[in-house]
Amino acid sequence: MENVTVNFLRDDDITAPVLIEGLPGIGQVGKLTAEHIMHELGAEKIAEIFSLHFPPQVIIDEEGVSHLVSNEIYRYAGEDATLLFLVGDFQSTSAEGHYILTETYLDIAEELGVQRIYTLGGYGVGHLVENSRVFAAVNMPELIPEVEAAGGSFENAQNGGVIVGASGLLLGLGVHRGIEGICLMGETSGYIVDPKSAESLLHVLKNLLNIEIDPTLLQQRAEDMEQIIAKIREAEEMKADEELSYIG
Amino acid sequence: MENVTVNFLRDDDITAPVLIEGLPGIGQVGKLTAEHIMHELGAEKIAEIFSLHFPPQVIIDEEGVSHLVSNEIYRYAGEDATLLFLVGDFQSTSAEGHYILTETYLDIAEELGVQRIYTLGGYGVGHLVENSRVFAAVNMPELIPEVEAAGGSFENAQNGGVIVGASGLLLGLGVHRGIEGICLMGETSGYIVDPKSAESLLHVLKNLLNIEIDPTLLQQRAEDMEQIIAKIREAEEMKADEELSYIG
Amino acid sequence: MENVTVNFLRDDDITAPVLIEGLPGIGQVGKLTAEHIMHELGAEKIAEIFSLHFPPQVIIDEEGVSHLVSNEIYRYAGEDATLLFLVGDFQSTSAEGHYILTETYLDIAEELGVQRIYTLGGYGVGHLVENSRVFAAVNMPELIPEVEAAGGSFENAQNGGVIVGASGLLLGLGVHRGIEGICLMGETSGYIVDPKSAESLLHVLKNLLNIEIDPTLLQQRAEDMEQIIAKIREAEEMKADEELSYIG
Amino acid sequence: MENVTVNFLRDDDITAPVLIEGLPGIGQVGKLTAEHIMHELGAEKIAEIFSLHFPPQVIIDEEGVSHLVSNEIYRYAGEDATLLFLVGDFQSTSAEGHYILTETYLDIAEELGVQRIYTLGGYGVGHLVENSRVFAAVNMPELIPEVEAAGGSFENAQNGGVIVGASGLLLGLGVHRGIEGICLMGETSGYIVDPKSAESLLHVLKNLLNIEIDPTLLQQRAEDMEQIIAKIREAEEMKADEELSYIG
Repeated sequence: MENVTVNFLRDDDITAPVLIEGLPGIGQVGKLTAEHIMHELGAEKIAEIFSLHFPPQVIIDEEGVSHLVSNEIYRYAGEDATLLFLVGDFQSTSAEGHYILTETYLDIAEELGVQRIYTLGGYGVGHLVENSRVFAAVNMPELIPEVEAAGGSFENAQNGGVIVGASGLLLGLGVHRGIEGICLMGETSGYIVDPKSAESLLHVLKNLLNIEIDPTLLQQRAEDMEQIIAKIREAEEMKADEELSYIG
Repeated sequence: MENVTVNFLRDDDITAPVLIEGLPGIGQVGKLTAEHIMHELGAEKIAEIFSLHFPPQVIIDEEGVSHLVSNEIYRYAGEDATLLFLVGDFQSTSAEGHYILTETYLDIAEELGVQRIYTLGGYGVGHLVENSRVFAAVNMPELIPEVEAAGGSFENAQNGGVIVGASGLLLGLGVHRGIEGICLMGETSGYIVDPKSAESLLHVLKNLLNIEIDPTLLQQRAEDMEQIIAKIREAEEMKADEELSYIG
Repeated sequence: MENVTVNFLRDDDITAPVLIEGLPGIGQVGKLTAEHIMHELGAEKIAEIFSLHFPPQVIIDEEGVSHLVSNEIYRYAGEDATLLFLVGDFQSTSAEGHYILTETYLDIAEELGVQRIYTLGGYGVGHLVENSRVFAAVNMPELIPEVEAAGGSFENAQNGGVIVGASGLLLGLGVHRGIEGICLMGETSGYIVDPKSAESLLHVLKNLLNIEIDPTLLQQRAEDMEQIIAKIREAEEMKADEELSYIG
Repeated sequence: MENVTVNFLRDDDITAPVLIEGLPGIGQVGKLTAEHIMHELGAEKIAEIFSLHFPPQVIIDEEGVSHLVSNEIYRYAGEDATLLFLVGDFQSTSAEGHYILTETYLDIAEELGVQRIYTLGGYGVGHLVENSRVFAAVNMPELIPEVEAAGGSFENAQNGGVIVGASGLLLGLGVHRGIEGICLMGETSGYIVDPKSAESLLHVLKNLLNIEIDPTLLQQRAEDMEQIIAKIREAEEMKADEELSYIG
């Protein structure tokens, strides 16, 4: 078995200047954002990536049909933009696998004409965040003004820090191929799936892509999540009160 | 050393349309079922599979003779059916090894003419089960009606879920070679070796294979296990009573 | 770097029918026994084995000189016997490495004419043992009577059990090359380095090799260890007494 | 992707007889010392080493620009000496990777004419050290007198001990290529980053290299660290006093 296998589902000459990565990570912020954009734009799947560096398992869908763990490339080719997306449910199981898989992602990107990659993720701060900032990192210093103009912040850079997995390596390995890389990280607690942080991230990304994307569905998911959190808090307070009256 | 070595013990032209996998897993349900069928039909060993992805050890048999860890292929070639079996005491020690070993299993299956693979396992629910249902997953949607007609249930699919190891990968990698894959999972607590769940699984598999297999030995093992559980419960209740009278 | 590198320190045609393995393991029983024999017979080092499957470190000797982790082949070529020894301070760091290293050991063995391998180890029972039995396993059933005649016991075989690492794999992989393999395991607590168990093991091995080896040094080490254990017990009892008188 | 990639940033014929390794380790003693010398001499970067054996991540600098994890070769070519330095923020993530990376370091060293390697590290003793000794190990016994004359101590050798990672393997693998290897280890608690121990180490290394290096900056960092430790101790004592008066 090859370490990585790529199955292309379409054979055409359409190139795309931009790839957006939204694999699983902190608060699922990157995944939520990328999948929201794909859904709104109606992107279609054009490639599947299988690898022995993914977990050795199949996923059962709601019909009972098995699917080998994979990452996938989707494409939206519209009048306003042509965009590629890299999404999936898993990253590599091993340190070495992250490097090997990212080189494959970059091979695909180069083959499809990509000149810039946005990698999306969460920036965990360990407490609930009211208004999520969008922190950023780039792989070429000349990209900084453009990101700041779009609403991205580089405040986090003062803390040093690292970006682990595909979101980091696409920047770090991409620069050696001359591909621009911008990592956007929505501030998030790190405790919950965070569509509100994803909405902040979407806002900055829209400015950078210069296209329109309706945020309504993401806003609704954020409101649903707010209500879930409110209910949990209420239940906790009630329980605390009951315990007090019991003691009293 | 090769990653995987296959020793064929027979050299003939007999092909088999069906492979049944029963490697170790939850409640040993798959292993019990496959080994029961092999025993009842009198299947013979036709190949041994060794690999550096298995644990680095030998097993000592009751005579004191060592045996390298292996998986094995058995065959039953009768008038009613020709069946292959994939059994053994271990699976891969590493994530990557699961992929590499499963590709070897599929190479063997293709070489021997296999068109359909049944993978057998347990479906752990965390509590003792009176009447084990048999849950299923398939690698091609058109297989669903046949499995349901034989008594398999797809209720579990609503929970999503994954199938880890060879039972999953034989479906997930097999579909890319055009081999039908059906995974049958006997509902089981997950705490004990469960011949009763294996008996339920056998019932559904017999319907699918359309052959007769005497379940008596499996039923006896299930009754033995029931008695062991009953005795453990009794002992626990007696102990609880004693403690109460001591307090009283 | 090659996975395994072998440096031969001598270039002659001397072959040896027997290899004795004494790598680290339970109670260091195998290592103590092999090194005692090597010392008594005056064996000389004829090969060094380096590998990236060993721990990534050097060992500092009493002079302050570093030595890359290695396993080593020693040889005794006398009138009574020609024997090879496989010894060292470490085994593989990974499961796969055990297989790869053992194949190298067998390559060397074949090259040097080895027809039989003795692998030496401890058999941990979890409590201090007064008179250590010597349990055995073989890779060909016809070897059993000879081992029993020499004082080895196959009682342990009834418990099933596995032999992990080089001691097991030399038997399991060796049989596929037609090399006889006998594993001798001195009964030991598993808690301490156990020269007394090594002495029992030496006794059985001497019978099998049919040569004389003076056990005096091993007996002395066993007596030293007995005294250490006695002192620890005494100290524990005194401490217990003091605590009692303090309470009283 | 290659396991290891080396990018040379300069193409000239300058050779250097000496390589100084200062990768991360106990108390960061080796890293502090190597980076101090590089800074004082004004060494320049001449090569970058990337590898899938490093952690799969990028590091964000204070501008917000990502940098793939790497080790780096710096060079100082002055009238008094020509020196190479091997530095970086990480070592291998796996045992095997340490061997593979060290072989690459030695390939580079040989290519650049290196005949001697100094590997720098800390020697953890588990308590704060007033006057750090500098312990040593060598890969050829004839190097001992020179190291002792320069102030290095071989007292530690009596305890046996191992040197893990690149500092050890450069000696252990280097000797097989005929490259002299001297490991210098500054005595340190192991609890804190220890510039004072680095200063002791610098003193011995200067003697060996026979060049002048101003220790002022390292001394200042050591004084800063002393003050930090003094303040922590003071705070702890005040807290202890408060607790006593509360009890009293």
